[in-house]
Amino acid sequence: MTKALRLGIAGLGTVGAATVQLLVGQAALLSTRAGRPIDVTAVSARDARKNRGIDLAGVTWCDDARELAKLDNVDVIVELIGGSDGVALELVEQALGAGKHVVTANKALLAHHGTRLAAAAEAADLVLAYEAAVAGGIPIIKVQRDGLAGNQVLRLHGILNGTCNYILTVMRETGRAFGDVLDEAQRLGYAEADPAFDVDGIDAAHKLAILASLAFGRVIDFDNVHIEGIRHISPLDTEYAEELGYRIKLLGIAEETPTGVYQRVHPSMVAKTSPIAQVDGVFNAVAVEGDAVGATMFQGRGAGAGPTASAVVADIMDIAAGRRAPVFGVPTAAMRPAATTSMEQHAGCYYVRLMVPDRPGVLSEITAIFRDEQVSIEAMVQRARDPHGPVPLVFTTHETQEAALTRSLDRIAESDACLEQPRMIRIESF
Amino acid sequence: MTKALRLGIAGLGTVGAATVQLLVGQAALLSTRAGRPIDVTAVSARDARKNRGIDLAGVTWCDDARELAKLDNVDVIVELIGGSDGVALELVEQALGAGKHVVTANKALLAHHGTRLAAAAEAADLVLAYEAAVAGGIPIIKVQRDGLAGNQVLRLHGILNGTCNYILTVMRETGRAFGDVLDEAQRLGYAEADPAFDVDGIDAAHKLAILASLAFGRVIDFDNVHIEGIRHISPLDTEYAEELGYRIKLLGIAEETPTGVYQRVHPSMVAKTSPIAQVDGVFNAVAVEGDAVGATMFQGRGAGAGPTASAVVADIMDIAAGRRAPVFGVPTAAMRPAATTSMEQHAGCYYVRLMVPDRPGVLSEITAIFRDEQVSIEAMVQRARDPHGPVPLVFTTHETQEAALTRSLDRIAESDACLEQPRMIRIESF
Repeated sequence: MTKALRLGIAGLGTVGAATVQLLVGQAALLSTRAGRPIDVTAVSARDARKNRGIDLAGVTWCDDARELAKLDNVDVIVELIGGSDGVALELVEQALGAGKHVVTANKALLAHHGTRLAAAAEAADLVLAYEAAVAGGIPIIKVQRDGLAGNQVLRLHGILNGTCNYILTVMRETGRAFGDVLDEAQRLGYAEADPAFDVDGIDAAHKLAILASLAFGRVIDFDNVHIEGIRHISPLDTEYAEELGYRIKLLGIAEETPTGVYQRVHPSMVAKTSPIAQVDGVFNAVAVEGDAVGATMFQGRGAGAGPTASAVVADIMDIAAGRRAPVFGVPTAAMRPAATTSMEQHAGCYYVRLMVPDRPGVLSEITAIFRDEQVSIEAMVQRARDPHGPVPLVFTTHETQEAALTRSLDRIAESDACLEQPRMIRIESF
Repeated sequence: MTKALRLGIAGLGTVGAATVQLLVGQAALLSTRAGRPIDVTAVSARDARKNRGIDLAGVTWCDDARELAKLDNVDVIVELIGGSDGVALELVEQALGAGKHVVTANKALLAHHGTRLAAAAEAADLVLAYEAAVAGGIPIIKVQRDGLAGNQVLRLHGILNGTCNYILTVMRETGRAFGDVLDEAQRLGYAEADPAFDVDGIDAAHKLAILASLAFGRVIDFDNVHIEGIRHISPLDTEYAEELGYRIKLLGIAEETPTGVYQRVHPSMVAKTSPIAQVDGVFNAVAVEGDAVGATMFQGRGAGAGPTASAVVADIMDIAAGRRAPVFGVPTAAMRPAATTSMEQHAGCYYVRLMVPDRPGVLSEITAIFRDEQVSIEAMVQRARDPHGPVPLVFTTHETQEAALTRSLDRIAESDACLEQPRMIRIESF
């Protein structure tokens, strides 16, 4: 095992450059650990002349990333381009077709094409590794696949998007509004210029679909992830959450039930004292509940050059050392079909915030609707009084069918007891 | 890879029985994941007739665990006997000598003989796996060795003993004394009849020595772990900690510095808001700081049948699937010698509690000693007044040489300004 492992790296943005830096800076340690040298022999990026602070002398340069798949001096393609289709997909397909292992940080690619790509890798006896695609530096893929391999996973939940967690943390700490904090996050580089993928929950849903597949041995089923983002969270909600003993987190939750798998990404209220509630700022965390191990939780930075490069290099080290596992934990032929349960079938507890006129009879009208729909109220908070404008009226419910709650809120929204769209946040207990 | 992997399990206590149950109950899933069946072909325990709720029909029974190493129908010895020497050591040595892989949950064995056993395994091209030896169900060995393989570890700290964490948590929550809570923990089965290994920090030190070796690529150096237990922690200390914004945890801390490696197990005050401060009760947690990944933390149950069996089975799965790594992360020939730095050379912040007579001049006498020894005081708390008895006088220091603090406390202990042995707890910032 003294022959070097030769890498072709596609994409030299912050993550690509950090990966090369780590491979070069830590070369002696890495080769001691892996039992062989690891060499970057080829790279591809948009601009060959840009100074990235890395020495690429003697490295083959490809203007088109897809050319990397054709090179004889490359054993592993490291795909750091991004995007679910286009060049990234073509490169990965061509690499597997050409007998090269693939390491990717691309969650969108796997969420959309993961099962098919896993089958292609398996058929060619190649590795398709994606530690960096989920939760950045937290080695959650290896933890689930190898470290907890003895367990049947019962449920998992996680903070899978650092941008949203940062925004929600600052909203809670300062009482500021979503848009205001998002602007700041963009200035600080914690949020993209187009924040939709992050704040609308899509990025978290990509990651959740991957984790759920791995956890439950099912084909990836991104299309059936229930997705809600955080744009509607108001400072009122963070304030009431605090008062009721909760914190608001954008969680990805996956659970296997007798009727199928729930996969859902939405703002959640969790007890202030729960481990996941303690994870603030740009940090990510994944909590996995296994039948043998019980509750576990893994936290770290979910994005950024260093943490992502750490995960990419860990995958490269596995390949260098010959460590192999089925791409999604079981051979693709053993991956069961998706069987997704819709949120209508979900039962849980809920936080509801209504904006109502401050006049007699409103409370009776609303509680009658809840009674009719068999929604059982656990607590109610009405503090502010304002005869001239809407006042918040907050309820929490006992366990309720989501369909019943939705019907109640639809009826309330139509009544003149309601001045703004009712807001609902699911309460999760872990 | 369809040939079954055959296990000989030594020790059928709660962990051994849970391991067999998991292997049998989850057999179909495990063989799908590992690519081959896993069979328990032989076992050894003290009493063959005891009902353990597991079916051992057709399984070879050995009265002497060492016989397992001689069996032809065993590929892997699973050592769940415990103890640093005696039968456990002989069995592991004989298994490696007979060409059998070893999976062990035995932290004492590895802390004392790990480097030598790793060399023996390596020379025979065999696996010596020990996920269950550290932090129970948390797959911290694989996390450090594989998941963070791209990193140079800068520092790690952890709650490595669930018994101590349970006792300290209850002391904080109830204000009760150590001995009282220990009694209760023994009744609940959270503490052994002889609690010394746990409450004196030795168990945590075994685990820390293993983690430090893996983190820093050095030979295991248990003898140079600085060890303090939790017997001296008084309800006064937990109360002052709370007031000062800290929690008291028994931490294992390892750090590589230019002068060597600090390995220390002692009660520590950590900021209430730090991630490790949130880990309560019987849970364990390990926080690893890597140069690329930054801060990470991994938590779960540190003991118990299910979590430990989960870790044992994960190791078995690695062997079944052919996943290999150097025992302590690098080949034993590359493990650097131990170079341990003593606590005298440590510099940090300290909490000091003195019990002093309530008379004029005491404060001046004590602060003069601190001044002479160049210990800079950050804060002082003196609330209670009692002209008839000792009153607590609490200081926290700025960063101070431990040697200087020790000299101060020795001088204070000798003076008549001090009525009881001064107590010191290190303040750690993470």
